[in-house]
Amino acid sequence: MADNLAQARHDLAIANRVVSYEGIIDAFGHVSMRHPTKPDRYLISRSRSPEVVEASDIYEYTLDSEPVTPLPDGIRGYGELVIHGEIYKARPDVNAVAHHHNMSFLPFCNSGEELVPLYHMGAQIGEKVPFWDSRDEFGDTNLLVLKPEEGRSLAKALGPYWLVLMRRHGGTVAGKNLTELVFRTIYTVRNAELQLMCKAQGHALSPLTPGEAKMAWDRNLMPRPQARAWEYWSTRLKKAGEYPAGAPKKASKSAARGKAAKRQRPARKAARR
Amino acid sequence: MADNLAQARHDLAIANRVVSYEGIIDAFGHVSMRHPTKPDRYLISRSRSPEVVEASDIYEYTLDSEPVTPLPDGIRGYGELVIHGEIYKARPDVNAVAHHHNMSFLPFCNSGEELVPLYHMGAQIGEKVPFWDSRDEFGDTNLLVLKPEEGRSLAKALGPYWLVLMRRHGGTVAGKNLTELVFRTIYTVRNAELQLMCKAQGHALSPLTPGEAKMAWDRNLMPRPQARAWEYWSTRLKKAGEYPAGAPKKASKSAARGKAAKRQRPARKAARR
Amino acid sequence: MADNLAQARHDLAIANRVVSYEGIIDAFGHVSMRHPTKPDRYLISRSRSPEVVEASDIYEYTLDSEPVTPLPDGIRGYGELVIHGEIYKARPDVNAVAHHHNMSFLPFCNSGEELVPLYHMGAQIGEKVPFWDSRDEFGDTNLLVLKPEEGRSLAKALGPYWLVLMRRHGGTVAGKNLTELVFRTIYTVRNAELQLMCKAQGHALSPLTPGEAKMAWDRNLMPRPQARAWEYWSTRLKKAGEYPAGAPKKASKSAARGKAAKRQRPARKAARR
Amino acid sequence: MADNLAQARHDLAIANRVVSYEGIIDAFGHVSMRHPTKPDRYLISRSRSPEVVEASDIYEYTLDSEPVTPLPDGIRGYGELVIHGEIYKARPDVNAVAHHHNMSFLPFCNSGEELVPLYHMGAQIGEKVPFWDSRDEFGDTNLLVLKPEEGRSLAKALGPYWLVLMRRHGGTVAGKNLTELVFRTIYTVRNAELQLMCKAQGHALSPLTPGEAKMAWDRNLMPRPQARAWEYWSTRLKKAGEYPAGAPKKASKSAARGKAAKRQRPARKAARR
Repeated sequence: MADNLAQARHDLAIANRVVSYEGIIDAFGHVSMRHPTKPDRYLISRSRSPEVVEASDIYEYTLDSEPVTPLPDGIRGYGELVIHGEIYKARPDVNAVAHHHNMSFLPFCNSGEELVPLYHMGAQIGEKVPFWDSRDEFGDTNLLVLKPEEGRSLAKALGPYWLVLMRRHGGTVAGKNLTELVFRTIYTVRNAELQLMCKAQGHALSPLTPGEAKMAWDRNLMPRPQARAWEYWSTRLKKAGEYPAGAPKKASKSAARGKAAKRQRPARKAARR
Repeated sequence: MADNLAQARHDLAIANRVVSYEGIIDAFGHVSMRHPTKPDRYLISRSRSPEVVEASDIYEYTLDSEPVTPLPDGIRGYGELVIHGEIYKARPDVNAVAHHHNMSFLPFCNSGEELVPLYHMGAQIGEKVPFWDSRDEFGDTNLLVLKPEEGRSLAKALGPYWLVLMRRHGGTVAGKNLTELVFRTIYTVRNAELQLMCKAQGHALSPLTPGEAKMAWDRNLMPRPQARAWEYWSTRLKKAGEYPAGAPKKASKSAARGKAAKRQRPARKAARR
Repeated sequence: MADNLAQARHDLAIANRVVSYEGIIDAFGHVSMRHPTKPDRYLISRSRSPEVVEASDIYEYTLDSEPVTPLPDGIRGYGELVIHGEIYKARPDVNAVAHHHNMSFLPFCNSGEELVPLYHMGAQIGEKVPFWDSRDEFGDTNLLVLKPEEGRSLAKALGPYWLVLMRRHGGTVAGKNLTELVFRTIYTVRNAELQLMCKAQGHALSPLTPGEAKMAWDRNLMPRPQARAWEYWSTRLKKAGEYPAGAPKKASKSAARGKAAKRQRPARKAARR
Repeated sequence: MADNLAQARHDLAIANRVVSYEGIIDAFGHVSMRHPTKPDRYLISRSRSPEVVEASDIYEYTLDSEPVTPLPDGIRGYGELVIHGEIYKARPDVNAVAHHHNMSFLPFCNSGEELVPLYHMGAQIGEKVPFWDSRDEFGDTNLLVLKPEEGRSLAKALGPYWLVLMRRHGGTVAGKNLTELVFRTIYTVRNAELQLMCKAQGHALSPLTPGEAKMAWDRNLMPRPQARAWEYWSTRLKKAGEYPAGAPKKASKSAARGKAAKRQRPARKAARR
């Protein structure tokens, strides 16, 4: 986790933009992180599309999804804040959450077909991907997760896992830290895309064994691949002119990226901007 | 609706470019809006691809699809103007119309398979998506909607709904205002794409219930999601250098976007241009 | 046809870049046009990918596919020139030819499934799309059309039509002029893409009737849609910085685009460059 | 092969970026080449995504995949170096290797369905595409090729061929030189994509005959198409601002591209930068 609030907000703005730039989230969807030093709070943007979020858009919320200080006049929060708050409450090991409606998830959300890990990167779906169906407890709704009890129900469906698919709606992903969350958000979608392609190819699926899935999960989350992925994503943002404004003066000591990652920041790209 | 003509033409140019930039419309297709203060007129570009439309390309037409003043020498209007005029005539509640041939609609246009709402955003297809087949009344044609009677027939097929699929041709979308129209134009295509993916996955479709569809429709059209989507689309245009030239001096008071939306305009992006 | 050689070479460079930018042709494939005033010659780039062709890369060939003047030292022509030369020889009504391996054509090239017109723009495939199989006359080859007799065989397979699919290789498209050729090259690929999608949807195909196909073909080739498409493609090239260098000083009087098209050239875009 | 080390590193940086820019490799995957003058060494980037590799990131390794001089403090090599080292050891005719997880390969990696050449460019898959399954010799692993014995096993599975698909993981491609490698890396993925499309179309596959495949393979690897492809890829990098920094002062005499290729370098694009 980032060790100070300014860095955390900057990192969260990057994470918002990465999942947009890499094609996971469009106008809707949102990404949050637990407060770096106050575990009973979380950070999330005001109601804006992740692609345009800046550090200055990010506000603090209690785990009951109330703003810590009232939002400025005219500023609105996301409607589905309870997705985030209720998961942080139920899962002390979760420090970052993303919710989205990626097209490759939606056929699974519609049909209820179970996601299985089909290649080493797909092991990031975790041991099991549970479903949540708003109809089970709430009957006809607008599908969104707006009430605290809806958020609690979703968090319960997530259970000890790291991804929950929401019937006829989308998916919610959890991570131990922000880099892991972004990594999982991207590669769980890739695995879903692959499962659709495998089905179309017409053969039986050949998933990883539980042992393979566990070992591949561990390997993906080691510092080297995590740092490499973060460098890749953030460099792509910079090249595209999509990097958020206003990085904190003091260099990050973010454990999520580590020293090696810092050294890898591309001077050339910075200069080009 | 925009409260003055200059703002309306500017907004309509934006809408044209958004549906192009978001990949819904290519060289062909067109987008119109009802005149903001004269409900017996509508505004639409001269014959140009939506991607390159400027406010200055936009002319006024009567609901019989005659230009209010003769077009300048050498300037031509679209061939299918009656799509717009006849819908505005038949549907006083419709204030914006788009017509396109998006690839994800065309398999439905070809086969006649009915579109159903498969996720909350897909509720924007409305209660029902009727079909119109030019063969039924007109036999062999070039498929285009060129004659007033063809436009009237299409408007009749649309009936009280918000999207009509035209066999072997494309789709026509209606909205209460321009933001809603763009929103519906994008998310009805996403729902069609999803329905194709669900079919390929090989399970039975699991559509929203009528109650869910109605509530999700209402939710999507509330000011916050509408403003958020408009900010997302217009920011993307700006970043890509695709924003139309010549915004009116006086700031918009467009009800379609509202005050909150205005406040959300990204100062940083404007500065970058 | 363009009325002078400099304009013709400039237009041909644009056509090369349009079919690349619109995603039809990658590193391989080529586009040619008949000489504007000498019908026994044709113009085509030296061996370069269409995306990077400049007017200065374009050389004159006889219909036997010999360069009219020897190519400069170190400059090589395409290997498959006879595709172009033999079609110009056999078809005096053809004034532009493109050859490519677009991914949406290749399943048809592999399987031999017939292309049929599935929407109004798809009418550009013409009355019938014949196949050519190099195995029929030549047995095992490297698949390319390199020898005059191979070119003649392909031209014979094309017969009076406007598109021929080459088994396990790609497609060759013909046009009465360059704009029509680019139009047909793009929309025949779109129709192939649609046919693949329709098959995947699992319903019987519902093609245009012969009468509809003929009327839609005629409509698409009228001056207004042709000018509109050319403006769209060339503006997109300009915005992307892909427009070829060195437009001739004297403004084009190209019949292919006509006066209206000229008037529609976007001043703003030009200024932006 | 490039005739000096500086040119080799520059060319390898280009190759890394081409396979990224053309959409074959994302954050993970790697590309190497044999040392131009010391055949018992190979060159490969430190652990970075291919898209961001610079010549200065490239280090020398022995064929046992040990760095020739210790890596600078804080610099890490890729985890799967033995893929490269063991193939160079087993195959003196191989001078360049790429490893990736492209989405179009993964359904074949999952199902074990054999790749066959379906068009002339697809002949680059070679006579046969063997599979390697980490389970056969090593049981449950994290799927990666990390130990020398795993690398040797993979190299043995590759045998005399040029592409090996790794079950539930990805593919490894070999080439006689760097241009051939990039060419094969791109067009083997295209053939896989085509095979998926052909399957979806629902007809029996119609592969090239062995004679056609051999002749098409030979033709594709002739200097003219190889030079043309290299010019296309490197020009696209330049236009996109993705070309690696610091080309060596002395012009390349790379046999891989040859004199003609050099002459074809686009002066205009260089000037635009």
